[in-house]
Amino acid sequence: MRFTSQTSSDGVSEQLFTLGDIPGVLWTPELTGTRPLILMGHGGGEHKKAPGIVARARRFVTECGFAVAAVDVPAHGDRPKDEEYDRIATENQARVDAGAELAPLIADFQALVARQTVPEWRAVLDAVQELEHVGAGPVGYWGVCLGCGLGVPFVAAEPRVRAAVLGLGGALASAEAAARVTVPVEFLVQWDDERVPRAQSLALFDALASAEKTLHANPGRHAEIPEFELDSTLRFFARHLG
Amino acid sequence: MRFTSQTSSDGVSEQLFTLGDIPGVLWTPELTGTRPLILMGHGGGEHKKAPGIVARARRFVTECGFAVAAVDVPAHGDRPKDEEYDRIATENQARVDAGAELAPLIADFQALVARQTVPEWRAVLDAVQELEHVGAGPVGYWGVCLGCGLGVPFVAAEPRVRAAVLGLGGALASAEAAARVTVPVEFLVQWDDERVPRAQSLALFDALASAEKTLHANPGRHAEIPEFELDSTLRFFARHLG
Repeated sequence: MRFTSQTSSDGVSEQLFTLGDIPGVLWTPELTGTRPLILMGHGGGEHKKAPGIVARARRFVTECGFAVAAVDVPAHGDRPKDEEYDRIATENQARVDAGAELAPLIADFQALVARQTVPEWRAVLDAVQELEHVGAGPVGYWGVCLGCGLGVPFVAAEPRVRAAVLGLGGALASAEAAARVTVPVEFLVQWDDERVPRAQSLALFDALASAEKTLHANPGRHAEIPEFELDSTLRFFARHLG
Repeated sequence: MRFTSQTSSDGVSEQLFTLGDIPGVLWTPELTGTRPLILMGHGGGEHKKAPGIVARARRFVTECGFAVAAVDVPAHGDRPKDEEYDRIATENQARVDAGAELAPLIADFQALVARQTVPEWRAVLDAVQELEHVGAGPVGYWGVCLGCGLGVPFVAAEPRVRAAVLGLGGALASAEAAARVTVPVEFLVQWDDERVPRAQSLALFDALASAEKTLHANPGRHAEIPEFELDSTLRFFARHLG
């Protein structure tokens, strides 16, 4: 793990790093000591420092005292294009143009990417938890949209994760892995999501094997999660990791 | 309005009252002055001082400084049996025994009772808001199960209500009135509700005309709303009435 920059503002330290060829960012309070860690997965077409990631990460740090890490998904952010992924995306677009349904193609594609990101993210957890200002505290996961599609198999595979906020994803992509998720989950649904059919969202919530899971649905389109849900997310993680 | 008893414990004053032939209870902080008021509607077979009502009311008073009122629904609690309601209940039971569906019968019955309770509850609001230790502050409504079936038409009819927590109710009983509800609503669904079919619950949430409405669904049967939802209810009312 190699740190490439460090800045600090309003009590939040931000360190950019690379782990092998994975570019990442770590936000922490300006204090040493073991603390809970949230790993955040960004959305499709976004990156580790997308505004929605940074805004949430800063609040996890300042209001909960947690550490937060995010990394670029392959072919996103500071990572190079991936020829195989590009080829599949082009093929999928051609199939959709020819009348194929988009959702099953996205589901297959996310499953393929998850086979790469699950071990990558586990390696990031290993490395970050060895740092003195993070340590081996409880781990949470936050991810919606692509961050849900990649997050469900990650949470299912990684026993260090004790609680997860997921959402804006459907059963087609994630139901199989969801049946292996047993930790508490807060699951976000946008009632008028133009990308994920409502029944698909509800079916993914249904598929989670967690004894404690809570679905929060709000009116609005895919990207319109209301502000007050972040307050709820903070309390959810504080309750389960704090 | 006639007060019949007053007690006080842990900073919460409890006054029993009657308004005409409606028996009610009012909980307030031990301070004078105008404050938000929550009207609570109890569940079927319950009464104004059911444990679930009292526990929530005390937290609304102690944590938010609100006043809280609850009254017995006709044929519940300290109110006499009602011959017409009894006759309908007996007839409905006979129909169900003969193979009729229960849900439409309950829906019709709740609509009938609501024609009595909506004006009763509005009269209670009038009277309680004239009290020096309550005053004409913003009003919220809380009710699930029967308290949702009677609450939806009440919230639709009463412009003083600025926010409502509803749930454990279905579209069959309440969709028509729900289309006239425009205030923020937090709507509780039990994912494995043995009394309200899941699709009916989701359809009632869908029918609410409110621009801000948030659905919270949790695993478990009808009566098993998790503890943490009360924390959420407190924050919801604090946000909209505080």
